[in-house]
Amino acid sequence: MGAAVQKHVEIADFTPITPTAAISAAAHGGRAKCLQRLIRLDLPVPRTLALSVDQVRSIAAGRRPYTEQMLHELESPLVSVRPSSESADWGGPAAILNIGMCDRTHADLAVNLGERAADAIYARFIQAFAVHVARLDPEAFDLPARPDATTIASLLDAYETERGATFPQDPADQLADALRSMARSWDGPTARLLRQARGAPAEAGLGLVVQQMALGVGRRHEGESGSGVIQFIDSATGLPQITGRYLSQSQGREALLAEEGAIYLTQDPRGPSLEDIAPEILDTLTAHGTLCRRRLREEMQIEFTIDGGHLAILDAVRVPRSSRAGVRVAVALASDGVIPQAEAVARVEPRALSELLHPQVDPAHPPDVFASGIAASPGAATGRLVFSARAAQAAQAREEPCILVRRETTPDDVRGMHASVGVLTEKGGATSHAAVIARGLGLPCVVGAGGIAIDQRSATLTGDKGRTFREGDWITLDGTGGVALAGAVPLLEPALDDAFRTLLSWADDARDIGVRANADTPAEAQVARTFEAEGIGLCRTEHMFFEGDRLTVMREMIFTDNAEDREAALRRLLPVQRSDFVRLFRIMEGQPVCIRLLDPPLHEFLPAGPDALHDMAESLNLSLRSVTARVEALREFNPMLGMRGVRLGIAIPEIYEMQSRAIFEATVEAGGGVVPEIMVPLVSARREVELVKGRVDAVAAAVKAETGANFDYRLGVMVETPRAALRAEEIAANVAFLSFGTNDLTQMTYGLSRDDAGRFMGAYVAEGVFIEDPFLRLDVDGVGELLTLGAERGRAGHPGITLSVCGEHGGDPESIAFCRAAGFDYVSCSPFRVPLARLAAAQIALRDLGFPR
Amino acid sequence: MGAAVQKHVEIADFTPITPTAAISAAAHGGRAKCLQRLIRLDLPVPRTLALSVDQVRSIAAGRRPYTEQMLHELESPLVSVRPSSESADWGGPAAILNIGMCDRTHADLAVNLGERAADAIYARFIQAFAVHVARLDPEAFDLPARPDATTIASLLDAYETERGATFPQDPADQLADALRSMARSWDGPTARLLRQARGAPAEAGLGLVVQQMALGVGRRHEGESGSGVIQFIDSATGLPQITGRYLSQSQGREALLAEEGAIYLTQDPRGPSLEDIAPEILDTLTAHGTLCRRRLREEMQIEFTIDGGHLAILDAVRVPRSSRAGVRVAVALASDGVIPQAEAVARVEPRALSELLHPQVDPAHPPDVFASGIAASPGAATGRLVFSARAAQAAQAREEPCILVRRETTPDDVRGMHASVGVLTEKGGATSHAAVIARGLGLPCVVGAGGIAIDQRSATLTGDKGRTFREGDWITLDGTGGVALAGAVPLLEPALDDAFRTLLSWADDARDIGVRANADTPAEAQVARTFEAEGIGLCRTEHMFFEGDRLTVMREMIFTDNAEDREAALRRLLPVQRSDFVRLFRIMEGQPVCIRLLDPPLHEFLPAGPDALHDMAESLNLSLRSVTARVEALREFNPMLGMRGVRLGIAIPEIYEMQSRAIFEATVEAGGGVVPEIMVPLVSARREVELVKGRVDAVAAAVKAETGANFDYRLGVMVETPRAALRAEEIAANVAFLSFGTNDLTQMTYGLSRDDAGRFMGAYVAEGVFIEDPFLRLDVDGVGELLTLGAERGRAGHPGITLSVCGEHGGDPESIAFCRAAGFDYVSCSPFRVPLARLAAAQIALRDLGFPR
Repeated sequence: MGAAVQKHVEIADFTPITPTAAISAAAHGGRAKCLQRLIRLDLPVPRTLALSVDQVRSIAAGRRPYTEQMLHELESPLVSVRPSSESADWGGPAAILNIGMCDRTHADLAVNLGERAADAIYARFIQAFAVHVARLDPEAFDLPARPDATTIASLLDAYETERGATFPQDPADQLADALRSMARSWDGPTARLLRQARGAPAEAGLGLVVQQMALGVGRRHEGESGSGVIQFIDSATGLPQITGRYLSQSQGREALLAEEGAIYLTQDPRGPSLEDIAPEILDTLTAHGTLCRRRLREEMQIEFTIDGGHLAILDAVRVPRSSRAGVRVAVALASDGVIPQAEAVARVEPRALSELLHPQVDPAHPPDVFASGIAASPGAATGRLVFSARAAQAAQAREEPCILVRRETTPDDVRGMHASVGVLTEKGGATSHAAVIARGLGLPCVVGAGGIAIDQRSATLTGDKGRTFREGDWITLDGTGGVALAGAVPLLEPALDDAFRTLLSWADDARDIGVRANADTPAEAQVARTFEAEGIGLCRTEHMFFEGDRLTVMREMIFTDNAEDREAALRRLLPVQRSDFVRLFRIMEGQPVCIRLLDPPLHEFLPAGPDALHDMAESLNLSLRSVTARVEALREFNPMLGMRGVRLGIAIPEIYEMQSRAIFEATVEAGGGVVPEIMVPLVSARREVELVKGRVDAVAAAVKAETGANFDYRLGVMVETPRAALRAEEIAANVAFLSFGTNDLTQMTYGLSRDDAGRFMGAYVAEGVFIEDPFLRLDVDGVGELLTLGAERGRAGHPGITLSVCGEHGGDPESIAFCRAAGFDYVSCSPFRVPLARLAAAQIALRDLGFPR
Repeated sequence: MGAAVQKHVEIADFTPITPTAAISAAAHGGRAKCLQRLIRLDLPVPRTLALSVDQVRSIAAGRRPYTEQMLHELESPLVSVRPSSESADWGGPAAILNIGMCDRTHADLAVNLGERAADAIYARFIQAFAVHVARLDPEAFDLPARPDATTIASLLDAYETERGATFPQDPADQLADALRSMARSWDGPTARLLRQARGAPAEAGLGLVVQQMALGVGRRHEGESGSGVIQFIDSATGLPQITGRYLSQSQGREALLAEEGAIYLTQDPRGPSLEDIAPEILDTLTAHGTLCRRRLREEMQIEFTIDGGHLAILDAVRVPRSSRAGVRVAVALASDGVIPQAEAVARVEPRALSELLHPQVDPAHPPDVFASGIAASPGAATGRLVFSARAAQAAQAREEPCILVRRETTPDDVRGMHASVGVLTEKGGATSHAAVIARGLGLPCVVGAGGIAIDQRSATLTGDKGRTFREGDWITLDGTGGVALAGAVPLLEPALDDAFRTLLSWADDARDIGVRANADTPAEAQVARTFEAEGIGLCRTEHMFFEGDRLTVMREMIFTDNAEDREAALRRLLPVQRSDFVRLFRIMEGQPVCIRLLDPPLHEFLPAGPDALHDMAESLNLSLRSVTARVEALREFNPMLGMRGVRLGIAIPEIYEMQSRAIFEATVEAGGGVVPEIMVPLVSARREVELVKGRVDAVAAAVKAETGANFDYRLGVMVETPRAALRAEEIAANVAFLSFGTNDLTQMTYGLSRDDAGRFMGAYVAEGVFIEDPFLRLDVDGVGELLTLGAERGRAGHPGITLSVCGEHGGDPESIAFCRAAGFDYVSCSPFRVPLARLAAAQIALRDLGFPR
């Protein structure tokens, strides 16, 4: 210690954690803050110091910490250091225990605890210090089952040989080295990648806590010594259950890692328990747990040590939990009156819900496994094989589900993983890059499928028994079972429990913007219904024309020369289209169904390549030459900007007339429980809508006259061109709703085709040219302005008009927040995103009321 | 005549033209108004009645006109009827003379004028009535050279046979029939097409004038009788010169049609003249002409009749004139103080200027004629052969000049003609559809090229000596000479006379928005300079890479794997690019030159089709397989929305760096007389501009350091995406100018590719879905709002920033008016449209000052 000035500096280096100390999670990290809370609850926490994020940063930058003063303050020969990042989820360096072990302390311990315990502690410390602090080769520091004096000598030798310096004998030096090492490791690329995958901001910092060591090792006759971890719920299910492990004569989390000797906490027929040997300690722990739950308003996992019968609480963290358990805990805390319902809603990360929703492989289906590996992320998915991130993005752009197969993944693959429905790797383990990222994304993932051989050049995969699969082949990935199956296997819907439904019903109470689903098929409509979507916001009718025989009739229709033949072909499509709608309407009974009239250019229904053309010529009984010529004539330079949407509807009115008729006849047939909404795509001028509206109204009148039935319907416009947004006032005057198709609107506002953007979008986002991929997150500045402006003008032209978003952004929480602020009535998203959207929308509303997530 | 009420109705049927009658061009047509003006000048106009457009419309609808009252009012046994549409240019039915001729009048005339004259008049009237009013077969009414009583009898017989009714003997019936026939013919499809081609609105109506017949036929001893037409300028040149024809013993415009007997007006060595036989009449006519020019403020063509020495002025119309004469007349009237200069500027239709600007085939070049026909519209043009309107539009979309060849044209071809630089037809005459429309568009046109054979199916044309040309072959059309030449023949610039330059200098005095030219080549820059463009507003650099060897180097560059090889290839392109710029800068000395960095997707530089790929593989010394694979990899779904413009510049920075270097080095080499402007295409986000600007600035600094020279330059953005317009404020902050590329902006705002829109745009405009083709005329409501908004925001982000439009709309008068209103600094258009734009811009400014066109 020196002069007063120096003393002041020394104190600024750390903060003793007391009930009144100025400790905050932002400045000192979550662990430091939590320890202060435990201290305030009068829990027996050993003396602890907090090093702030700024202090740790300056240590990483080279400043020597005032470790002498820390040790003085802690009044303990041995101390531990643990990371304290703002969120426990962000990871951090491993804890280092027993700092202060040196020849002198070793001798003292040998007197107090006996040679064997002292040797074991010293040996383990030298090993830990060598590997984690000095970063020496772990193989040089392997430990025997029972370390002794010889072991210690050889470890100290090994240290000197490998490090080129003697093992530090000054506890203050040891602590300084440990702090510096931990401070620096935070900026390593692995740590950075890992925490960013878990949502940490780039500037996230690390705090550290230095604590009196509670040994957990002592002479038996002085009372029980050991350490353990306890929590009061099951991490997987969230159901109440005392869970944990205890190991006599152990430190830290050894009980969790021990291969033998660890015991249960409560009495258990399978073996001994803490309750057997120290029932009063378990009672105390249980009381502590109850207190924590009530006062910390959270389910905590408590790390404790018993030193000669005395309980010490070293640390407590939020119980790590599955998404399902997270939902159940939030609901239980609210049900028990610990937190308000709204807070339960605010606590669950919407994206975590998707993990609960993943389908599973139907066990009734005989599995045709071609590869097995580690089940790295749960759920199952079906998609086409792709062998590169780029191919995955291209598939996504085509709206084709794909499964990405890689030898192993790197950060370059992350965008491709985003674009995939599942990931399969040949290499890697449960914590490999692929596994970590896939879990973060909620994607089914199988890693370490060593039996497969991947040939990138030919884009083929060889699995069990030499079976070969090519790019584009359909496979099914079972991330729960850790296997890959050939073909598109039937999947089971996920089971959604009561807590899930309760949470979403609370969310619906808070929510003030509607959520519908985009659903094209009865199966999707069923999912939408299951997830309690408030109707269908976008039913794309084109998929209905791709199935089997319909495609042939569709092609005949496209190839007709005159309105009469065209109508004849369309008359054949009418009943199938009508029955599609009847099924949809029955499923959605009582809810709105918004059907988009045919949108894609006709050439999408036509084949490419000589063989397919020949097939078509045969099936249509036309010459190959004429088929080729007509297909060629329909080809477009920029199909996205071509003869599609309402342009098609105006050029070939019979198509929309047939579709309207199918919708109205289905409305009558389904019994009138639905008010159908008819949406006109790709509008850019008012007159387009007037023409279509005139024809649709005429068809409605005809169907009413023919059937004698009465029904209501609403006609609206899909706003996808910038011009439709700009002219929304005059367009809105004639219609009941405007639904903004943000996918196409983004393409046109940027002048950027999603199909082609994959080539450079990764680099663009990485270089910060675009802050985000505007196809994943709504571009608030540009596209967003068109939305706001279109909404204002739409309301000006038609007060009370219904406004919505039906692009893929409809399921993105930030985009939902934008739409809500702009006064939209509802968003529509894919059926599986409906729960997420319901929850996100509730949280946005709650944020206004002061409930942060 | 009946009761007072009926009398009132009768009077409403027509208006006697007196100096104070309520006659207006809008209500009664231009001829009626002009006759009133002549009457006010005290010219000897026979008594005339005006029928208004509304009255004529009701006659066409079936109401019987009150012809008895008309004849009573005119106090004349014979009358004429002439059309009086609002503008003389809009055409109308042919005049019908001598109405009232019947057996009784014939007998009277025979007494007064002699049998022969009476027979001739009666015979001609029966013929005209039969053909034009009763619409009988003309062949049944052929006239002998000297009609006599037998002729009349047989004509009356023929009439009865063909018509099934006797020839009407009641003058009132004759007049009623004539009026009805003329009224109805106005709504015939031919008349409608013709006047719409001349700019008449769809609702344009027809007035009629009924006039006392001035016979022009009489006994010689009673003094000179005859008729003629006189004007005081040459219609082709506009230079002062008494021009016209006179024919003794004739009526109407017979003097102009007569194959013999018509004489000159002024003394002429070639034959007799009016000046010889009636000098006092010529003096009077000349005095009338001078009076008209001064008081009517226009060069008039006067139709006159002499009846026994007495002069009657039947009609006067604006002298029909070539565009060149129109300019000279306007300039001469202003120079003589008859009209102000501003009115001269306001009077010339900007589009008419284009006719003066057309290049001509260089007579020094040996002509390789493969087809000859009628020279239907002057000027010459070079382009690729196309055989359909659709192919013409496709060529235009590719910015390839094309010449449309058709057997004959129909209204369906008009859009294709718009898209062509010349039109050649196998059939038709000087007034065929093709000829009329081509003249309206100012396109060179040759019609009636009977020697050619067109095969639409194989898209081939066979010309003289069996020479065959295919779609895509280059030909040259000489619309002045009436021939088609093989290949791209050198063309001479049009000669622009003093009047043209004077008018445009007056226009520049009035104009308050700048006019630049889009010019990619030195030749285009030279034209821009000739037409006094105020600099180059858009120099597209991609064309520079398509020539000869450069294309091969460009392809090598595209095919390199690494930045080093790419730079090596670009180093080879640098000198040629630099020398292109040096030439441009020297031509444009002292004026700004705005150069757009490379814009098109790279695949545009690559070949398609197996042969071309094979060639490329050879020239690049690569395997066909690798060439094909790479070409395929660069292919895009929507090239318009793909990897082009600044996206290319960011992905492959070396390209823009090379181009910037070429620009700066050329600036130094050209001697610093130019401040180059560098334009970044297809921007959608501020950061794109910042990245490019950083690199361009670095290149500028390097070139300054290397050369020791100093120079200025300006960097700006081409606003082509809706997002760039929306985000103009932040984009403008970093740049010196924003230039709106309205072609692409229109495509993206509508979500409509110009390449693909041709398929339905015609129908869309015809059905009024779009009011106008937005690629021809700026869409003020949608695209225009983005322009206004982009301009406002650009100025907010950077007060004083230069704003301009460089799309094809830059040459459209209405679009110029819009840009001026939005406060743009200049428009840039194709070099040949520069005079038009200068004049149009002046007229817009003058309109604000009250000078209507």
